[in-house]
Amino acid sequence: GLALGLWRRQAALAAAREDEEEKELRQRFMAPPVSGLRELRRRRRELRTRMELLIMETQAEVCRALAALDPGASFAVDSWERKEGGGGISCVLQDGEVFEKAGVNVSVVSGLLSEEAARQMRSRGKSLKAKDGKLPFCAMGVSSVIHPKNPHVPTMHFNYRYFEIEEADGTKQWWFGGGTDLTPTYLNEEDAVHFHKTLKEACDKHDLKLYPKYKKWCDDYFYIKHRGERRGIGGIFFDDMDSPSKEEVFQFVKSCAKAVVPCYIPIVKKHCHDSFTPEEKLWQQLRRGRYVEFNLVYDRGTKFGLLTPGSRIESILMSLPLTARWEYMHNPPESSKEAEILEVLRNPKDWVH
Amino acid sequence: GLALGLWRRQAALAAAREDEEEKELRQRFMAPPVSGLRELRRRRRELRTRMELLIMETQAEVCRALAALDPGASFAVDSWERKEGGGGISCVLQDGEVFEKAGVNVSVVSGLLSEEAARQMRSRGKSLKAKDGKLPFCAMGVSSVIHPKNPHVPTMHFNYRYFEIEEADGTKQWWFGGGTDLTPTYLNEEDAVHFHKTLKEACDKHDLKLYPKYKKWCDDYFYIKHRGERRGIGGIFFDDMDSPSKEEVFQFVKSCAKAVVPCYIPIVKKHCHDSFTPEEKLWQQLRRGRYVEFNLVYDRGTKFGLLTPGSRIESILMSLPLTARWEYMHNPPESSKEAEILEVLRNPKDWVH
Repeated sequence: GLALGLWRRQAALAAAREDEEEKELRQRFMAPPVSGLRELRRRRRELRTRMELLIMETQAEVCRALAALDPGASFAVDSWERKEGGGGISCVLQDGEVFEKAGVNVSVVSGLLSEEAARQMRSRGKSLKAKDGKLPFCAMGVSSVIHPKNPHVPTMHFNYRYFEIEEADGTKQWWFGGGTDLTPTYLNEEDAVHFHKTLKEACDKHDLKLYPKYKKWCDDYFYIKHRGERRGIGGIFFDDMDSPSKEEVFQFVKSCAKAVVPCYIPIVKKHCHDSFTPEEKLWQQLRRGRYVEFNLVYDRGTKFGLLTPGSRIESILMSLPLTARWEYMHNPPESSKEAEILEVLRNPKDWVH
Repeated sequence: GLALGLWRRQAALAAAREDEEEKELRQRFMAPPVSGLRELRRRRRELRTRMELLIMETQAEVCRALAALDPGASFAVDSWERKEGGGGISCVLQDGEVFEKAGVNVSVVSGLLSEEAARQMRSRGKSLKAKDGKLPFCAMGVSSVIHPKNPHVPTMHFNYRYFEIEEADGTKQWWFGGGTDLTPTYLNEEDAVHFHKTLKEACDKHDLKLYPKYKKWCDDYFYIKHRGERRGIGGIFFDDMDSPSKEEVFQFVKSCAKAVVPCYIPIVKKHCHDSFTPEEKLWQQLRRGRYVEFNLVYDRGTKFGLLTPGSRIESILMSLPLTARWEYMHNPPESSKEAEILEVLRNPKDWVH
């Protein structure tokens, strides 16, 4: 009697709490999480659960901040499944007043990797011991590219991701990767400093060595070799991060993800009503062309995605601009504003010390 | 006296003939040939000389035929040298009335290849015996992409090329490659048949097996794997062609090169004044995006060019359209004209039997 009544009360309370949580999560996110709320609740203390919630939160935070600046437009939200396991949520705002194309994508996939594919996933190419040549893996991340219409508002990209691979003896390898970087059409030093300073502050909370190391990695990674130019003015980039500890790296990644909105939104607000000339729009279109060149020729994430069977092409190529242009032998005149940004793309600068 | 006089007369006649030839060659070509007229005269019977003259002639023929259709515009002609040996001539017409971007490029380069680079140049990957790891080579070709403005005029690409590599024991390996293919925005069956029929006739003069074999090779090569689509409605494509004999393959390549103008120009003439809607222009821009995807992600020539030190990037990326567009999740409605061309790009057809 008494014990059963107590159990019933506890069960009812738990159910009510779950309903409440579910309602809250649905309000917080753009769509129900890939792993399902019940599953996430069941393993709430595991890092992959906390990371999935973080990427969902980041997606919602960024989408809401962008939508608030472009009141006429709204995000289309697509939840998709991957036949081989997992799925994702793609949010895209296209042809708005402020944004030409803004995509924020979450994916949470799992399955079996070949040793070759697993090796390609790590930039250091660590060897992994597979059972029967196959490695169970779990990969998740949030990635985004925002292409605004106004040539005085820069393009921004970020990506934060987490991998787990289980080796033959049951040990799990895990690592984080990510970064946030800015691609302006024209150089605005104040914006560049604000962007880098905000990233540096996020890094410095964890380790003073991180910002300088990941700033350089970013300049090296986003290099369009055949042009001798970087894609933009950088930011931070890192991969294969697996120390000092899972918890500490997660906290670092969380700080970076939380820095996306304060990095970028003030710059959009500041310039989205700037006037511009047709010549400035044309230069933006040519820079968009370079963006496409980097993404299709060099970007590891894009290349890996295009080669992975069952990957969702529309979500991978969401990063491409709505429009781009290639002119033969376009060379901006010396000491023009166009030459000014080219100089910085050829010789990256330190924006904060 | 008499002997000296005779010698003088012969020398004067020879000089006059050379002047005449030089004048004639200059009129025939878009710019002086890379190898120089004197050098070409010295080795006039060699195949590499005859091929250089053929690619120069093809360049001039195509440029003149295109310019005649776009009277307001004209080709910019750039002769360029390659530090490592050789050079090229790039002819580009940009933003004309009829053509958005038309590029016809000749390159004639020579130097030393690493064994690895030499292996990559042959699609079959034949092994080559190098002296001290280096192979003297000579590569030449004409390549062209024509992007018209009107969405009812298709994009056309062709490329004809010749390679020679000298092995350690002095034996020379040689082979030809090339092809001509069409990328319409909308399907016009009559045009598709005309294009393929003209190519088939050029092939059939040499061997009835060539057209079916190279038609299929073309469909297989211009495959955008991540989209499950071909770039266009094909044409012919071949590589590593080294039989039955150097002379016979050269004659075949010559027939193909001579077929470019009759393949394409009638189609441009037929449609360049067709009216079109903004929706048709938009679909053209989306197809241009796919063209960029193929060229930057899959095309062997482009990838090889981007990775080759000292290559002229502007001439390689001349193939990219002036403008392109990427929309998230653009799916044309069933039984629309857009769906009709997609169907053919997904399932290539036989246009002539």
